[in-house]
Amino acid sequence: MAAQGGARVAVVGAGIRGSMFARAIQQNPTAELVALVEPAESTRTRVAQQLQIPVYADVAELLERHPDLTGAVIATPDPTHRAPAVACAEAGLHLLVEKPLATTGEDAEAITAAVERAGVQAVVGFENRWNERFAEVRRQLASKEHGRVVHQVSNLNDTVFVPTEMLSWAGTSSPAWFLMPHTLDLTMWLSDAVPVEVFARGVQRVLPALGVPTWDTVTASFLMSDGSVVVLNSSWVLPTSMPSVFDFRHEVHTDTTSYQIEISPSGVTRYDAERGSWLQFGVHERSGRLRGVPIDMVDDFVDLLNGADLDLPDVRHGLTVTRSIEAVHASLASGRPEPINA
Amino acid sequence: MAAQGGARVAVVGAGIRGSMFARAIQQNPTAELVALVEPAESTRTRVAQQLQIPVYADVAELLERHPDLTGAVIATPDPTHRAPAVACAEAGLHLLVEKPLATTGEDAEAITAAVERAGVQAVVGFENRWNERFAEVRRQLASKEHGRVVHQVSNLNDTVFVPTEMLSWAGTSSPAWFLMPHTLDLTMWLSDAVPVEVFARGVQRVLPALGVPTWDTVTASFLMSDGSVVVLNSSWVLPTSMPSVFDFRHEVHTDTTSYQIEISPSGVTRYDAERGSWLQFGVHERSGRLRGVPIDMVDDFVDLLNGADLDLPDVRHGLTVTRSIEAVHASLASGRPEPINA
Amino acid sequence: MAAQGGARVAVVGAGIRGSMFARAIQQNPTAELVALVEPAESTRTRVAQQLQIPVYADVAELLERHPDLTGAVIATPDPTHRAPAVACAEAGLHLLVEKPLATTGEDAEAITAAVERAGVQAVVGFENRWNERFAEVRRQLASKEHGRVVHQVSNLNDTVFVPTEMLSWAGTSSPAWFLMPHTLDLTMWLSDAVPVEVFARGVQRVLPALGVPTWDTVTASFLMSDGSVVVLNSSWVLPTSMPSVFDFRHEVHTDTTSYQIEISPSGVTRYDAERGSWLQFGVHERSGRLRGVPIDMVDDFVDLLNGADLDLPDVRHGLTVTRSIEAVHASLASGRPEPINA
Amino acid sequence: MAAQGGARVAVVGAGIRGSMFARAIQQNPTAELVALVEPAESTRTRVAQQLQIPVYADVAELLERHPDLTGAVIATPDPTHRAPAVACAEAGLHLLVEKPLATTGEDAEAITAAVERAGVQAVVGFENRWNERFAEVRRQLASKEHGRVVHQVSNLNDTVFVPTEMLSWAGTSSPAWFLMPHTLDLTMWLSDAVPVEVFARGVQRVLPALGVPTWDTVTASFLMSDGSVVVLNSSWVLPTSMPSVFDFRHEVHTDTTSYQIEISPSGVTRYDAERGSWLQFGVHERSGRLRGVPIDMVDDFVDLLNGADLDLPDVRHGLTVTRSIEAVHASLASGRPEPINA
Repeated sequence: MAAQGGARVAVVGAGIRGSMFARAIQQNPTAELVALVEPAESTRTRVAQQLQIPVYADVAELLERHPDLTGAVIATPDPTHRAPAVACAEAGLHLLVEKPLATTGEDAEAITAAVERAGVQAVVGFENRWNERFAEVRRQLASKEHGRVVHQVSNLNDTVFVPTEMLSWAGTSSPAWFLMPHTLDLTMWLSDAVPVEVFARGVQRVLPALGVPTWDTVTASFLMSDGSVVVLNSSWVLPTSMPSVFDFRHEVHTDTTSYQIEISPSGVTRYDAERGSWLQFGVHERSGRLRGVPIDMVDDFVDLLNGADLDLPDVRHGLTVTRSIEAVHASLASGRPEPINA
Repeated sequence: MAAQGGARVAVVGAGIRGSMFARAIQQNPTAELVALVEPAESTRTRVAQQLQIPVYADVAELLERHPDLTGAVIATPDPTHRAPAVACAEAGLHLLVEKPLATTGEDAEAITAAVERAGVQAVVGFENRWNERFAEVRRQLASKEHGRVVHQVSNLNDTVFVPTEMLSWAGTSSPAWFLMPHTLDLTMWLSDAVPVEVFARGVQRVLPALGVPTWDTVTASFLMSDGSVVVLNSSWVLPTSMPSVFDFRHEVHTDTTSYQIEISPSGVTRYDAERGSWLQFGVHERSGRLRGVPIDMVDDFVDLLNGADLDLPDVRHGLTVTRSIEAVHASLASGRPEPINA
Repeated sequence: MAAQGGARVAVVGAGIRGSMFARAIQQNPTAELVALVEPAESTRTRVAQQLQIPVYADVAELLERHPDLTGAVIATPDPTHRAPAVACAEAGLHLLVEKPLATTGEDAEAITAAVERAGVQAVVGFENRWNERFAEVRRQLASKEHGRVVHQVSNLNDTVFVPTEMLSWAGTSSPAWFLMPHTLDLTMWLSDAVPVEVFARGVQRVLPALGVPTWDTVTASFLMSDGSVVVLNSSWVLPTSMPSVFDFRHEVHTDTTSYQIEISPSGVTRYDAERGSWLQFGVHERSGRLRGVPIDMVDDFVDLLNGADLDLPDVRHGLTVTRSIEAVHASLASGRPEPINA
Repeated sequence: MAAQGGARVAVVGAGIRGSMFARAIQQNPTAELVALVEPAESTRTRVAQQLQIPVYADVAELLERHPDLTGAVIATPDPTHRAPAVACAEAGLHLLVEKPLATTGEDAEAITAAVERAGVQAVVGFENRWNERFAEVRRQLASKEHGRVVHQVSNLNDTVFVPTEMLSWAGTSSPAWFLMPHTLDLTMWLSDAVPVEVFARGVQRVLPALGVPTWDTVTASFLMSDGSVVVLNSSWVLPTSMPSVFDFRHEVHTDTTSYQIEISPSGVTRYDAERGSWLQFGVHERSGRLRGVPIDMVDDFVDLLNGADLDLPDVRHGLTVTRSIEAVHASLASGRPEPINA
């Protein structure tokens, strides 16, 4: 369903997320999914057949064959955003980059520099902003009718399934890199403040013993630019018997009001012969169309490509988040609070 | 945003629901909202100004002025669906009728007859089917992988605000007429069965004392055609301090599996200086567009008008529900179980 | 720890409950546990050794050997209370009889007659009255400051483990006999009213197929003497993956106030490598002493034996409950509402 | 109900807690409540009349008049434990001191020194250990069957009612001094570890503006001696619309297991005409006797006085907790992690 003169988009990375983004673009009537990039040959062949569009082995080929692209979605593994993001930006494409923008400050700076040099826009995929629960709390807080934020506590954990079975590259990441970009983004967005300093602690015992050399759990305490305090807790070793693969609970406290936001329970608990679980609707299908927060995010990216003026998380914000998570790891190493030069 | 050759729709009734339906049609790119009908003059003037389209005082005028309509949404008060529905059907319009189809079996039969004579389609607005939670449970049950339904218990209550402040016509309705069509529809849809017999009890004490001559609470026990049992509880006298104006909890139990579905808690609890509440997202706005289950329902109705083949709750189903709720009231009066001739 | 001149108590039935009652009496400083009765030889030998007191094969021998008993606890399987209760009453013993008093009206009447002829007191073990949650709600309702009861809905279910693995005699009982005495007692106690008429429905499919010829689930709708309405739901086929072997949720609604009482969640959810569960503290040990609601009930029974004047559920109340549950089964059979001659 | 030769106990401080402790001792059959001490004259007169025992204006007089006391409960305001505790210890009395032992390390050391010089026992009133939920989790963790603790997160907050209306001395205390002794004690007890270092952050804005010059909220991140990590969050500015005056949620995560412990929801939610609340049963009355965790704690203290050998939180433990909370405040002041010399 190609849009005449509309957004022409490629997706780099055809894993779980990349494939979903590809479908989201295909079903958007104002965009055309032009091609994908995927280095793994078997995945490449399978996806090309499923989506009936070209899938290239590298970004260079994509850019050469399709000089008329307007946007690209970067959905490669977290530590490998830099090369495709820089290449696409330099080719003049607007970007939707999966969070985190990068997993080193250096990479994030390189992407930011490329984006700014090229004068393109880069949206960082902090998809929780498209979750109506957070959006409504943000609206209420922005209205100033419910006080100013005093402190926030955000718990976002995964069961041990994620680092041991779902992600092949977990050992090069951490619960802080994988989970805290979401929660730090939200705390910043909800309070309209930036982090100034962080102190972090963690434990490294369970995952290394399972052959994944990273942190089991990280806790980080941030001082924010508005004087409020943020606590982020992220663990990667929760038991797989939990009713959801992720455990997401966020609290915002102001002078007058407390918000308690629970994302994991969906409203449907199913107890079957084996186990209890919360059915999940983060992404779901209806009448053959995908729906859910990442789909809404892609739709907004397409609108942006088509000229809309939207307030989306940009590359500078993504850079701040990456520097902050880098500071979390610096504090884990130094045992001291670390400044964040946002 | 009129659709060339697309659905041309009118909305009858410009109250809270009718206005929302009107906006939903206006924002659908494949439909045109042609006009509204609203008997109350002050509402009429206000809505005409807001929506910038004609608002007529009666259906006859609507039909005379706009012979090219393809569909109508009937959103008048519950007991007054018959006249506009029959008139629109006879004019060859497809219908979306708010639940319940009617509040007497006679009215429901008259509408059904008119619809079938005219050969039009009539969707009854059981909007919970567009709630992804119920839709997913229905999908799982239909797959037969989670056993056959043994029994269901569905509680759908309102705070006393609804019959005493929100609805001017509560005294001519009841918690059974207002709430049980939703829950009965769901139990039928989830189990693919129809009600055969009902026994009901109720209390009439609190609302009459408040000047609303109807039932405070009704409980109804249904035998279903598949041998399963359904219990529906609906009260109209819950305290206004509850965190939501409605209290909706549904259980489905099969041979092997139990589903517990909670609709009222949204995932966001707000405690402000005055009270605790669950923020509600049943209908919400994003980027200037309404979203939510009634909007999705209207979109499907528009797709139907535009020729799509969709499995939507039809007039025969609406007739069964109306006869069943009529049987609830018959049982309240007789003190005996009453058959349902579905 | 024999009490000089204090209560001298025997326990009839040395199963799970009987053994617990025996320990409760042993640890009460104002009572002496004199002996037990247990027909099964292996249990008899084991218990005699554990408790270091005589365990007889039948009640006749107990009464002959211990003419100085003051009270007996009847903890035999539900359908077999009559013989030991009558014998002990005729011997002048005050009784604590496990709920339900009996599983036929005839048995219940025989026990009542024997108790009244003998002039003894018989407490029926509706232990939820010792649960502080229900006790506090009862206190508040009795104070009349929170309105008069309009309706109550009480769900008390068990997982399929109970009828298929825990109880050897489930096929001669039902979820109504096993569970509804608890919930009916509570609804009566909370509203200070008695049931007048009941209509019940049920399903018989899953348990018969598992070799247990009884009801899977029963729902009963009661008209109460104060005009309020009570709905009781009890199932015996819930999945064993539920976080607790029982599922107990009770609602009381008055003119002005709603109480939602949840008994199964204890405040501690444990997710281990296998499953999620709610730790249970209904009976627990602390410093070598049992604690919990059945222990408090036994302590009150001992106080009664020692002369205290306490308001406890008596034999007439137990008779009403038994007749009511009998009427539930009569309605299941007749398909009509059945009167309850309380 | 004086116990011949049993525990002879005085209570110092006749506020809410002191009065409750006095009643707990009075109702214990193995203890005698001998006298109270209370400096405020009006309280003194009232309490003397209520309890019908002497109430002195100072500890010196108590000790002079009653040389035969065996124990004392110190229930003065948090910052004033030192003088009465030291005087009573020097008089040879065993002590039950309300938590925290003291609000300065210096005071805590003085009490510890006096206790150890006198060779008496001092129990510190960490009453949550008598909460069966924590006790059972502790038992399970001590059994080593559920893995070793990786991290704990404990949230214990109060509504703004506590510092602004309930406590006259809130400005000399803080949410850390008032709430964290509870949660730090629990984390130590559950993991059998001691804190080694703490980093804390806080906000001081809302309470100072309300005339209470202390912290609104404090978050503290502890490194424990077993390598595990503990996060404590305590706020004093939660809205009074919350369903309970305190908000207590504790998580323990091990290699294999997660425990989620919720203390505030009691199982009974009441919605009345005004508000929703969780009925609280921390201390309640049954048949004229107080029950609940502080009563069980007092009973254990009495057993200790009567010679029992119990594992209770002692003065050295209380000293560690006080030093740790002092380190929390040191870190708040320094902006750096602070060592804890436990």
